[in-house]
Amino acid sequence: MGDAAACERRVPVRKFSGGDVVEAEDRVAVEEPLEIIIGWPAETEDSIAETRNIAVTMRTPGNDAELALGFLFTEGLIPSADAVVDVRAEPNLNRVTVILREVTESSAAALKRNFYMTSSCGVCGKASIDAIRTHAQFSAAGAELRITAESLVSLPQRLKEYQAVFRGTGSIHAAALFDAQGLRPEVFEDVGRHNAVDKLVGAMLRAGQLPLHRAGLLVSGRASFELVQKARMAGCAILASVGAPSSLAIDLAWDSDMTLIGFLRDGRFNVYAGPARVDS
Amino acid sequence: MGDAAACERRVPVRKFSGGDVVEAEDRVAVEEPLEIIIGWPAETEDSIAETRNIAVTMRTPGNDAELALGFLFTEGLIPSADAVVDVRAEPNLNRVTVILREVTESSAAALKRNFYMTSSCGVCGKASIDAIRTHAQFSAAGAELRITAESLVSLPQRLKEYQAVFRGTGSIHAAALFDAQGLRPEVFEDVGRHNAVDKLVGAMLRAGQLPLHRAGLLVSGRASFELVQKARMAGCAILASVGAPSSLAIDLAWDSDMTLIGFLRDGRFNVYAGPARVDS
Repeated sequence: MGDAAACERRVPVRKFSGGDVVEAEDRVAVEEPLEIIIGWPAETEDSIAETRNIAVTMRTPGNDAELALGFLFTEGLIPSADAVVDVRAEPNLNRVTVILREVTESSAAALKRNFYMTSSCGVCGKASIDAIRTHAQFSAAGAELRITAESLVSLPQRLKEYQAVFRGTGSIHAAALFDAQGLRPEVFEDVGRHNAVDKLVGAMLRAGQLPLHRAGLLVSGRASFELVQKARMAGCAILASVGAPSSLAIDLAWDSDMTLIGFLRDGRFNVYAGPARVDS
Repeated sequence: MGDAAACERRVPVRKFSGGDVVEAEDRVAVEEPLEIIIGWPAETEDSIAETRNIAVTMRTPGNDAELALGFLFTEGLIPSADAVVDVRAEPNLNRVTVILREVTESSAAALKRNFYMTSSCGVCGKASIDAIRTHAQFSAAGAELRITAESLVSLPQRLKEYQAVFRGTGSIHAAALFDAQGLRPEVFEDVGRHNAVDKLVGAMLRAGQLPLHRAGLLVSGRASFELVQKARMAGCAILASVGAPSSLAIDLAWDSDMTLIGFLRDGRFNVYAGPARVDS
């Protein structure tokens, strides 16, 4: 997904290899700041009454609206797409404004309080440890998704084939959904793992496809606490990562009745939580 | 560096490979939240007059004091070790408090304003794009460090040998310093790239070794804007990464008279900025 031209840049590079030095050109992933702003509509006219800067995230341009929606949803700041009136992406200004429905005074106060505590990528930057866990409205316990080992090991190669920008170069993170039939072709890419997942979740939110009880989430990097939490917020029962999981990612997966798979590459994988969903 | 026992945990795992399924045990990197707090001493007694929660970062336990110091320094929140009276690490509470010298009313106001804008890991979570670039007190332009291609290609293997916790498994990020003589043996590890760098910079700050004009910084992952900025704050003239650089990382490196090296692995590397410091 996204515009390949905006996501990559060609740069001059001096390449050293086995005593040889050559001047060449290389493609690198674009990284730029995106300011995520929320606004409330004015009561009487088609304008914005109040705005609030929520976060600046370093992202690869493309799918800014989905990124903002996915971020707000997985951080627990909006409960559903119904809470959103409009999304105004201004990529040239590196800015996206999510217009929320008018809220009551008390819920506005709660929202604002919450924003301060979560104005960051994922869990970092939260003012206290209590704020780390978001409240999930979906439970993976109800998800009946099962997957075979054979299907799982096919996913990384498919992911590379589907990656629009950096096919198999490993220069950018990717997130995609899979089910018993294999990988779905919509791949979201970003220099940040959490952003790639937010773009995907935001797109599904927009399409009215949450909770994702019938899909697993595949990510190209490691499985941190933050990524398990985002998958959990979206209702995914399985998170599969190409890299290693962390201790807290495993704990949260068990606590949430989720299946956590790591080191999914080279025809192998490890199941760290919820093995009952994986058939050999 | 750090206590290997606290940094890793053994977990049960179900391993799938080529049709085989085995129950085994795996080592995973520990990930836990760390609350970074600053405090000001009371005027008349040995107590804390006021504290402020700055950030919660998901980190691998170990070198919490260095992590907090490095974070505050590379975020531009403390100018030097002289600004710090004491660092109280409470690993069992996942908390570290950095006691600052008494500050004047106006500088306190500036500090507090700044804290709101930077209460995050690196650049995310900042309230506006203007807040992304920190002010560096050191310039790489004065650094005379030069390095040979032969020395550079030896670094990744040395890094793996020196990694205390996850020797060569790729399960955790690492940061270390190098010079013309090769890699220095102190390696700092963390589930987060930025944390590994902050631990290293914090250790150097404590040891009175900033600016690092005679050292380059080696990181195990990709080179983002954030990592170039942290290296720049510490006065490193060369940042070498095992992975890919982003567009903004390259821009900042050129702007800061720094040398940026990417894809340093398998006996090869690419120079994306400041090639004059690398001799073939």
